[in-house]
Amino acid sequence: MNLFNVYPLYEITPSHGSMCYVYDKEDKKYLDLYGGHAVISIGHNHPNYIESISNQLNKIGFYSNYIINDLQKEVANEIIKQSNCHNYKLFMTNSGAESNENALQVASFYNKRSKIIAFKNSFHGRSNAALSITDNNKIKSEINKKIDVKFIEFNDMESFDIEISKGDVSSVIFESIQGVGGLDQPSVEFVKYISKKCKKHNTCLIADEVQSGFGRSGDFFAFQKYNINPDIICMAKGMGNGFPVGGILIKNHINSSFGMLGTTFGGNHLACSAVLAVLKTLKDENLLENSIQMEKYFRDKISKISSVVRIKGRGLMLGIEFDFEAAQLRKNLIFKHKIFTGGSANKNLLRILPPLNINKSHIDILFNALKEEVK
Amino acid sequence: MNLFNVYPLYEITPSHGSMCYVYDKEDKKYLDLYGGHAVISIGHNHPNYIESISNQLNKIGFYSNYIINDLQKEVANEIIKQSNCHNYKLFMTNSGAESNENALQVASFYNKRSKIIAFKNSFHGRSNAALSITDNNKIKSEINKKIDVKFIEFNDMESFDIEISKGDVSSVIFESIQGVGGLDQPSVEFVKYISKKCKKHNTCLIADEVQSGFGRSGDFFAFQKYNINPDIICMAKGMGNGFPVGGILIKNHINSSFGMLGTTFGGNHLACSAVLAVLKTLKDENLLENSIQMEKYFRDKISKISSVVRIKGRGLMLGIEFDFEAAQLRKNLIFKHKIFTGGSANKNLLRILPPLNINKSHIDILFNALKEEVK
Repeated sequence: MNLFNVYPLYEITPSHGSMCYVYDKEDKKYLDLYGGHAVISIGHNHPNYIESISNQLNKIGFYSNYIINDLQKEVANEIIKQSNCHNYKLFMTNSGAESNENALQVASFYNKRSKIIAFKNSFHGRSNAALSITDNNKIKSEINKKIDVKFIEFNDMESFDIEISKGDVSSVIFESIQGVGGLDQPSVEFVKYISKKCKKHNTCLIADEVQSGFGRSGDFFAFQKYNINPDIICMAKGMGNGFPVGGILIKNHINSSFGMLGTTFGGNHLACSAVLAVLKTLKDENLLENSIQMEKYFRDKISKISSVVRIKGRGLMLGIEFDFEAAQLRKNLIFKHKIFTGGSANKNLLRILPPLNINKSHIDILFNALKEEVK
Repeated sequence: MNLFNVYPLYEITPSHGSMCYVYDKEDKKYLDLYGGHAVISIGHNHPNYIESISNQLNKIGFYSNYIINDLQKEVANEIIKQSNCHNYKLFMTNSGAESNENALQVASFYNKRSKIIAFKNSFHGRSNAALSITDNNKIKSEINKKIDVKFIEFNDMESFDIEISKGDVSSVIFESIQGVGGLDQPSVEFVKYISKKCKKHNTCLIADEVQSGFGRSGDFFAFQKYNINPDIICMAKGMGNGFPVGGILIKNHINSSFGMLGTTFGGNHLACSAVLAVLKTLKDENLLENSIQMEKYFRDKISKISSVVRIKGRGLMLGIEFDFEAAQLRKNLIFKHKIFTGGSANKNLLRILPPLNINKSHIDILFNALKEEVK
């Protein structure tokens, strides 16, 4: 073994993919209702995706950000158009962690502060600042404990009020639908409240849409349900359908300056071609609407299984909570029924994060497998 | 403008590339002696590169790290073989910043400490911990000042000794050839000394080979000149020839555990296919040897220009130091002579970071342009 062994592996070796399916070395076919943690947004090997990346690869894959890259402007235009988030500017990165790092960085430059409010059960990534604001001490080293971060429960207005009123908070970062944490969502009232308080205290509100963004929730961004305008919006996972790319949208009132941020790879031509293929497909195939329709069908169907306590989440970012721990069920789904699903911090929960173009037949396959496995 | 404006742009829009050349929208041809900061290692659109990525793209581009990816093992094998760094294990990331972040993280988990020694004029990337160890206050926000970092001058054994002897240093991170800083190198004696002292105090020695690695210096890693074995080796830039990918090699005595590190995109199939194409080309075209030969020719030729004070660096990671500030010359080279070169923290220096398969004729083109521009 020549790999640093940090992943408890399932003994499956994917060899090729096709839309909602992944095939292993022996050509066994798996239904992918997980998408490698919400990454596969438009399906494995979507023709738009292959075409766009192939075309770009034969032109130029990369050049430094110190010369003009029109593709970045196209990406920005199309995100702004599809999301309806006008009055924002784009900065591109390589991952969700880098997006969150840059968001915290922009906020700290903006108000010259360093304290951060994050939420219980949060996950924001694996670099130092991203780990500092992640509520899981098991994955934190000593260097991740240096930034002053207050973790507050969703919907605890009183604790939030005490912290924000000190006037020294640089940013508040939240997931509209918690991913790793287990699909919890703050109340509409709470999010409106923290948005108002952030404005009052000149604190930046950061929406971590790394997992929930790019159409997964049925809105382009999950925070849009709350009718707020965060100062910074963080993107990654579904943005490139597997290509390593991320980005942040920064509201116009926050000024940029030369050298303030920087990235070598971020926004490279090949990454942009991946994002443009995703954006084209979201629009052409009406995938936000499909997420909403599939959620309805999913809830109707899966809630018929009696050991299901509840279905959490929104759009195609869903969790099935059982009245038992789901680890063995997840294994059975993979090895017996050839269906990928995900786990979470909540051990009773299966996470369902499929490509956004699944149809009812795929949900039926899961339903039939669950009927066989559980009561 | 819908992009967050942090880059002072040269008004050139690359449209396609071919080996050492980049072409703009009007099909003007530029000699690329910069490679977008040492990123283009085997040349733009190298046939091996296009073939490898295209093939993989048509199979599968990405799946989560929780199932087996044989390509990562191939990458690890080939790096270990070509670099001769046995007794190391690989963890893959998406960028140089992520590589350095993970290296600091591994060190801190290993010895449960948090203080870091870095060096004057260092640059390690743009995420929080990477910025903390970067010696440039202009690009640091308030959150980048929380980790306890001591900056020491290269070759200052006395100051190094005082710090390391306190016994609370988690890691020492150094560039064997400083990139952004301006091509300075520590002495052999000094590097051997810090390596010995790190061992004594159970401090991890981290070689940041993000820019100098993957053959650029003429060795596979630039630290190999010093005949040391760092605990952790960080890679990125040249590793993927423009594809966003990085990695760290971790020495076998440092144990891994499940969940200790993690990345969604890092080590994805497409990234591996890019790295494998680079590794194949380094070997097939004997590019480490070419780096050494081209350095010799470069030094002979360019030192003939009388305003050149000295030539710094090693292999194809070179700096030409003039007896004047080089910004205007750099512009003239780009716009008049159609040659890309780079700047650095040392304003009198032009950085030369070409694809590793340049030949003498490319150096002659630079020589002739310089002869026209300077005395």
